Amino acid sequence: MSMLKGIAASNGVAIAKAYTLEAPELSFETKKVDDVESEVTRLQDALGISKQELEKIKENARQSLGDEHAEIFSAHLLILNDPEMIAPMQDKIKNESVNAEAALDEVANMFISMFENMDNEYMRERAADIRDVTKRVMAHLLNVTFPDPALIDEEVIIIAEDLTPSDTAQLNKQFVKGFTTNIGGRTSHSAIMARSLEIPAVVGTKTVTTDVKDGDIIIVDGVEGEIIVNPSEDVIAKYEAKQADFEKQKEVWAQLKDEPTISKDGTHVELVANIGTPDDVQGVLNNGGEGVGLYRTEFLYMGNSDFPTEDQQFEAYKSVLEQMGDKPVVVRTLDIGGDKELSYLDLPKEMNPFLGFRAVRLCLERDDIFRTQLRALLRASTYGNLKIMFPMIATLNEFRDAKALLLEEKENLTSEGVNVSDDIEIGIMVEIPSTAVIARQFAKEVDFFSIGTNDLIQYTMAADRMNERVSYLYQPYHPAILNLVNNVIEAAHAEGKWAGMCGEMAGDSIAIPILLGLGLDEFSMSATSILPARTQIKDLSKEDLASYKDELLSMSTADEVEAFIREKTNQ
Amino acid sequence: MSMLKGIAASNGVAIAKAYTLEAPELSFETKKVDDVESEVTRLQDALGISKQELEKIKENARQSLGDEHAEIFSAHLLILNDPEMIAPMQDKIKNESVNAEAALDEVANMFISMFENMDNEYMRERAADIRDVTKRVMAHLLNVTFPDPALIDEEVIIIAEDLTPSDTAQLNKQFVKGFTTNIGGRTSHSAIMARSLEIPAVVGTKTVTTDVKDGDIIIVDGVEGEIIVNPSEDVIAKYEAKQADFEKQKEVWAQLKDEPTISKDGTHVELVANIGTPDDVQGVLNNGGEGVGLYRTEFLYMGNSDFPTEDQQFEAYKSVLEQMGDKPVVVRTLDIGGDKELSYLDLPKEMNPFLGFRAVRLCLERDDIFRTQLRALLRASTYGNLKIMFPMIATLNEFRDAKALLLEEKENLTSEGVNVSDDIEIGIMVEIPSTAVIARQFAKEVDFFSIGTNDLIQYTMAADRMNERVSYLYQPYHPAILNLVNNVIEAAHAEGKWAGMCGEMAGDSIAIPILLGLGLDEFSMSATSILPARTQIKDLSKEDLASYKDELLSMSTADEVEAFIREKTNQ
Repeated sequence: MSMLKGIAASNGVAIAKAYTLEAPELSFETKKVDDVESEVTRLQDALGISKQELEKIKENARQSLGDEHAEIFSAHLLILNDPEMIAPMQDKIKNESVNAEAALDEVANMFISMFENMDNEYMRERAADIRDVTKRVMAHLLNVTFPDPALIDEEVIIIAEDLTPSDTAQLNKQFVKGFTTNIGGRTSHSAIMARSLEIPAVVGTKTVTTDVKDGDIIIVDGVEGEIIVNPSEDVIAKYEAKQADFEKQKEVWAQLKDEPTISKDGTHVELVANIGTPDDVQGVLNNGGEGVGLYRTEFLYMGNSDFPTEDQQFEAYKSVLEQMGDKPVVVRTLDIGGDKELSYLDLPKEMNPFLGFRAVRLCLERDDIFRTQLRALLRASTYGNLKIMFPMIATLNEFRDAKALLLEEKENLTSEGVNVSDDIEIGIMVEIPSTAVIARQFAKEVDFFSIGTNDLIQYTMAADRMNERVSYLYQPYHPAILNLVNNVIEAAHAEGKWAGMCGEMAGDSIAIPILLGLGLDEFSMSATSILPARTQIKDLSKEDLASYKDELLSMSTADEVEAFIREKTNQ
Repeated sequence: MSMLKGIAASNGVAIAKAYTLEAPELSFETKKVDDVESEVTRLQDALGISKQELEKIKENARQSLGDEHAEIFSAHLLILNDPEMIAPMQDKIKNESVNAEAALDEVANMFISMFENMDNEYMRERAADIRDVTKRVMAHLLNVTFPDPALIDEEVIIIAEDLTPSDTAQLNKQFVKGFTTNIGGRTSHSAIMARSLEIPAVVGTKTVTTDVKDGDIIIVDGVEGEIIVNPSEDVIAKYEAKQADFEKQKEVWAQLKDEPTISKDGTHVELVANIGTPDDVQGVLNNGGEGVGLYRTEFLYMGNSDFPTEDQQFEAYKSVLEQMGDKPVVVRTLDIGGDKELSYLDLPKEMNPFLGFRAVRLCLERDDIFRTQLRALLRASTYGNLKIMFPMIATLNEFRDAKALLLEEKENLTSEGVNVSDDIEIGIMVEIPSTAVIARQFAKEVDFFSIGTNDLIQYTMAADRMNERVSYLYQPYHPAILNLVNNVIEAAHAEGKWAGMCGEMAGDSIAIPILLGLGLDEFSMSATSILPARTQIKDLSKEDLASYKDELLSMSTADEVEAFIREKTNQ
């Protein structure tokens, strides 16, 4: 028996035989070709077969897993049909007389690195999609067999270097009880898919493919992030019990789906979800979300070849609002620029894009872009419970300017005879330290705050969270962060406004007790975190937690805070 | 009569005839050459004549302006003798058979853009030096006459697109009464030189070379940043009066040189200077500095081809301490990394260098580099009044770790029999929002704070101050900045410690009354700002200013703060 540590990527416990999903060997040599036309044909053929396969896989996925999981293959098919991807490959073969493998590889890598360099989960997933599709086409060019997880017909735990989006989408829950990989983190695609499929998973083990042999019995502990190889009977029994506990836990969660979120001592807080597209709304409702706390509208822009029109945007916003009924939907206006590039918007390269020309800074200068979005939002406002918030607000003047544009467009629409709701709350993201520091001044003018901890932490600590060498400074429990968060909440309450949080911190089990104690009103997180969070809050006493406030705020380090909370909440 | 607005670069008023200093026309074509050897000789000849000229100019500058101003030509001669610059030019001619002009241009531009991309005034000046020297060599290659400001023999005001370092160093104050340029800002080389020569200057007018003709009578108002062209008699009389006032003002300043800095109601604050090298100390003393508030040690590293040895550093620190006598010298440990690169230290490129792996973050990982500096500082500590501070501290653990290394090296030195002072204060730069927010926790462990506003403002506002598109967000008077500064000062005083400031804000005439009112103990600024600041503080009542504190801290915008202070202090 041996044990491997990894990153807990999806809750639960699985016990089964290991099944290695080997990545196809896809190495090739760049060669000069004489007959470029037949090389172009070879590429076309490989693309064609790949498309047929994907159509078939998509149909299977639709039948066995539902429309939602089949969607990924529509995305893959779109890539294979995208002339912006395919034409450069053909040109490369023709102009440089290289083989199809080289052309495919080079063009795909260009797109992959473009998407990967964006600080945006959605776009990084697109990079994973392209990588995935490219592998399939490459396998056909090289006549190499492509692994097919759909063929698995006994209970197994999959072992792999990494899982591609199409691998995970083909997993049949009936047979695949869990998986574990060498690479990846909590936000890698395979981890996200595992949570959405509700299969236990441990990623980032570094060595599981070498330490585990096909047929070994293994335990995937997705709670602790551990893999146990060839466990003894005793250990198996222990984990079977843990598994049963987890199943019971899930039942408890499910019972809370339609319940409000109430602490042990009777305080109601709102648990809402972060979404990127109208398609995400179903997941929010399935997981008992009490609303949408952050609708990131930039995906509308990033998935497009030009600015989305007012009508296109209107349809998207309306769809989200209608689906959510009378539940609140907080829409963040466009946060683009800096490192989030649009192919159709030419912005100068910046030395420090995280400290650059983005979000509301760009929207106030390019008010043509901004007004279109504001009009679309205003038009959609009558279809549900809309709240609008502006990102990257650093000064009160920015908020005043943005709000003035919104009111101007409201007046324009009204005079055009368009109905606009009169109850739209207008708030801001608090993600820049200056705004957190003078929240009291802001609270007089905004309707609500939503604390964006991902950025707030990186600016407050002056550490790029994407930069590995300083990511240790990304410390959500740092007392400075807690003081700023507290300041924002107190400022809001002093003016009778509400304060929410839409960063990753809002769904974190150490942060939740702290935030509850500080009086946070709304917690916005990924949909799948909502039920565990509701369960956790049900057992917490807000009054007890509030009594620790002064002590927490005067602590010196993040470690001290974490240890204190772990002790007080038995974690 | 007409008027032009520019940037006030150097105080004072000048009235004289315009004299256009034309930049030589240095365009060339890249050509292939057959005889590479004679092309190399042509380059050598141009370098040789340039060196002779520079030797002569240097000697003239030494006699008329003193050693300090002659130094720049030593730097220029070093460039012309630097094999790392010259060898690549020769190689280029030989390997690519291009003409000397092309080789000179390309190699020089490579170095220029390397130095220019560093966020560091010293290194950007090196880029200006190379540009300057290259022009001279290019003029000789092209047989173009190079302008020689030393030939001016009547009272004039120089008009130019820009002034190079060698232009300004050759200005004879007897005849050149002022200058004005199209480009440049307050921190451009020509502006810095103008202040050090005490010649009025207005830079960044954009159009002065086209709007003013040779021989026009012009007024340079270096206080307001205005150029008046062909003024009437009345206007001339008005400005002559202003000129006389300014001269009287300078006498008042000079009288305060050896005085302490005391507010109208009797509070003493320390006015100290920022320096980069031991050579800067004389300027501090000449300007009545009560100490050094920030000694930027990285120049020792950046001017070098390898890490400076412990002994080299010891000599530099000892020299500064000895020259300053018993006046305090606050040394900042190495702030390198991020955008400040060292040719001999290979660091990965970062997406957001301002939020990256730099300063104490790098020093704690590369403690070999750090320990060498700490040992050199400790050895120098017995030669004066040394205080040590660590830059970019974001967490208490970083401070504890850095201090532990310092104490460890102190013990090592003591056991080696080396004398080390026992009275070294150990403090930190407060330039990261997290540290400003929990200053109370830090104050229990540090001996002092020095607020680095340049970085603190850019992190607090999440705006890169070097990025033109967001530099409007670099707002020193933003109420959030004032609240953080106040928090740091209050935290220090609560523990009986002192708080200083070493960012540009400390020398700003709007900020000074605010900071005095908040209770700042030490103001560190450029040496030439000390006497004007002392004069200003002499007329300010700390008690009055302190009474505005609550009002200032609860204001909403920087504009409000500025207007308030202007009104209260008649500015």
